[in-house]
Amino acid sequence: MSIERAAILSTGDELTTGRTVDTNANFLADRLTAAGIEVATIIAVGDEPDRIAWAWGEGMRLADLVISTGGLGPTADDRTTEAVARLANRRLVWNEEVATRIRQIFAAMNRPMPENNLKQAWFPEGAEVLPNPLGTAPGFRLSIETGSGWRHLIALPGVPREMTRMVEDSVLPWLAQARGKTEVYASRVFQTFGASESALDELVAGALPETEGRVAFRAAFPQISVRVTVAAPPGEVEQRLARAAERLRQRIAPYVYAEGETTMEEVVGQLLRERHKTLAIAESCTGGLIGHRITNVPGSSAYLLGVVVAYANAVKQTALGVSAATLARFGAVSEEVAREMAAGVRRLTGADAGLATTGIAGPEGGTPDKPVGTLCLALDTAEGCFSRRYQLWGNREWIKLLASQLALDWVRRWALGHDPTASGWQARGQPRAS
Amino acid sequence: MSIERAAILSTGDELTTGRTVDTNANFLADRLTAAGIEVATIIAVGDEPDRIAWAWGEGMRLADLVISTGGLGPTADDRTTEAVARLANRRLVWNEEVATRIRQIFAAMNRPMPENNLKQAWFPEGAEVLPNPLGTAPGFRLSIETGSGWRHLIALPGVPREMTRMVEDSVLPWLAQARGKTEVYASRVFQTFGASESALDELVAGALPETEGRVAFRAAFPQISVRVTVAAPPGEVEQRLARAAERLRQRIAPYVYAEGETTMEEVVGQLLRERHKTLAIAESCTGGLIGHRITNVPGSSAYLLGVVVAYANAVKQTALGVSAATLARFGAVSEEVAREMAAGVRRLTGADAGLATTGIAGPEGGTPDKPVGTLCLALDTAEGCFSRRYQLWGNREWIKLLASQLALDWVRRWALGHDPTASGWQARGQPRAS
Repeated sequence: MSIERAAILSTGDELTTGRTVDTNANFLADRLTAAGIEVATIIAVGDEPDRIAWAWGEGMRLADLVISTGGLGPTADDRTTEAVARLANRRLVWNEEVATRIRQIFAAMNRPMPENNLKQAWFPEGAEVLPNPLGTAPGFRLSIETGSGWRHLIALPGVPREMTRMVEDSVLPWLAQARGKTEVYASRVFQTFGASESALDELVAGALPETEGRVAFRAAFPQISVRVTVAAPPGEVEQRLARAAERLRQRIAPYVYAEGETTMEEVVGQLLRERHKTLAIAESCTGGLIGHRITNVPGSSAYLLGVVVAYANAVKQTALGVSAATLARFGAVSEEVAREMAAGVRRLTGADAGLATTGIAGPEGGTPDKPVGTLCLALDTAEGCFSRRYQLWGNREWIKLLASQLALDWVRRWALGHDPTASGWQARGQPRAS
Repeated sequence: MSIERAAILSTGDELTTGRTVDTNANFLADRLTAAGIEVATIIAVGDEPDRIAWAWGEGMRLADLVISTGGLGPTADDRTTEAVARLANRRLVWNEEVATRIRQIFAAMNRPMPENNLKQAWFPEGAEVLPNPLGTAPGFRLSIETGSGWRHLIALPGVPREMTRMVEDSVLPWLAQARGKTEVYASRVFQTFGASESALDELVAGALPETEGRVAFRAAFPQISVRVTVAAPPGEVEQRLARAAERLRQRIAPYVYAEGETTMEEVVGQLLRERHKTLAIAESCTGGLIGHRITNVPGSSAYLLGVVVAYANAVKQTALGVSAATLARFGAVSEEVAREMAAGVRRLTGADAGLATTGIAGPEGGTPDKPVGTLCLALDTAEGCFSRRYQLWGNREWIKLLASQLALDWVRRWALGHDPTASGWQARGQPRAS
């Protein structure tokens, strides 16, 4: 079956009134693109039946696959199911199995079930129910033949956690099968740090002929991921993917810090855990952000002993033992002070590595010698104390984030036995004007 | 002129391939809704001329105001201007003033100007140029008469910073004037903490007859804002707004921590600065997040002396002077330990207030006595040491965020001379199932 083009619909007043950013559509666009499907449009409408019908109608005109999120809840303003049934000219039928499951969920929570929840047990006749393992509202899929060919209509709930799980569990596998190609899709993603998206784009250019794989970037700074997707017969796809991924990796190797959907703080955590190393941090300009990121990883108490955010110079002295002479001679923002901070926090906690940041996040505080964006990093370890000065740029938020990513990358490199000071940030290409 | 309904268009392959989340459309939906305009739909398309033309056509069919972002850049795939000109049946005309300004921008940056940048000096005949103070690509507005009435077409660049500024500077003022009503719109926003969106919704119900003002919520947790918008003749609008805002405020007063677009950390910072108070923080379960948030505010070094993230018990003892006996008797997650942490960090830094958090962010580490979500807060000050235990819920990220917001609210209340322990979090109403 040929399914080449998708329309993504998002339903809910919270979108058209600006209460909610539409991250569901973004997730679907990313996953469909990776599966080799072109997304023709993304349409958001509120909860009015006319608008919902219009959106489905246009979606069916522009695409052979229409995927919607939202409008499947128990309340009166959840109208997706009715709209699809009317458009497909199907009546609604009761699904007792789904009704039983909804009753069981409420019973298990020891909560009375509002009767309107059973609204979620009605489906357009002929639809396949898509199970929702994380909530009460299942989705459905309905394939209908129209004057211009088959149309595949998929309705999913709007709760992101439920929707994404259902896409991975039900929608993508069905899609691969329904397209009935001798080819299946497989992809691999690399996480990178140190090069901008446009710099990566240049590096990757020409690495793969289009027939051998498609490369896509996705930037959610400080995370820039590079995904390669190949289409091949089932028996060959793994081998083809391995080959394409290897070609890609050769181009971007210095910037790759992980494979798969993982963050820098997770990579650092896993390395420290595997190698039985502990870490302590002395932050100045990053203000606690590194500690926050490290502690976002469950179980981080196994390797993070503590953090001192030494904003005031007096705290640098009393808590970390930075000497007054060093502060006076080199200034708080200096490699020398960073080194004493790193050594101090390591001594205080007994950690294997002491990491320190000091710099000027701005917008105030810059000088000709040490402009906004100046960053000094130090890492004190049994193998010695490393330090380096960087010049970053951007606003306060960006500088803090970039500094935290650089600092975490230092820990990663050290844990791997590499030189941490080799870490850096290069932006090639021009930032786009508008 | 009657302008009642808008369509928002977003143009760019980065949207339909899932590389970028469409925050522009969300911003526009929020601002237009606040101005009393109904958003009929949000449509995103890639850079193909046919799709762009389709989106503009549907937008004009559904709405009398069509606002688009993106597709105004200098490259070949920036096609919004041509699409609008064709749809409106206007030729493109050269604007020498804009061309001069683009040349000047490049000259000022000492950068050679790629010739294609001058593409941005062409506009549909009859369009009004909307200046872009922050970039090279101006926007434009074109009003045309069609068989079904006037259509107002506005094209803005896709860079969020530039776009939002142009909306505030040019679009909204024009809109207010063009609607030519004897009425103008004015709004006021309250920032709240302590009640969920549905709880606020219940509190506010019936506070204002629809003729006296429209109330809208916007949740970007931990920030939940409540905006009231009134429409009234220019001479009356301020008075009417003041009255509506006062009625609203009476309903939600216990939860309001600020008026206007401001964050909890900015409010705390301003209070500490005004009252010449300094703060130090001992974080356990929040892992540095409170320090990170406080230091996101420029100039926070004036009142934040330092932060100790005491993840390991040994660090609680060595860096903060928490006694081994207290740890052994009450456990690390206890009001008693929180109190010693708060006193310890205050002593270490000499701050006026020492704030401490200890708790269980999960997903591991919970016990029947102290389940995941247990939080103990303490604030040590010259007026005494306050402490309280809370039971939060949610995943690790949510618990950290909610704990940091509660802790900051404690500092705010203390700085105002109130009882910090009165702060709390109430969720009324049911979380929505799907």
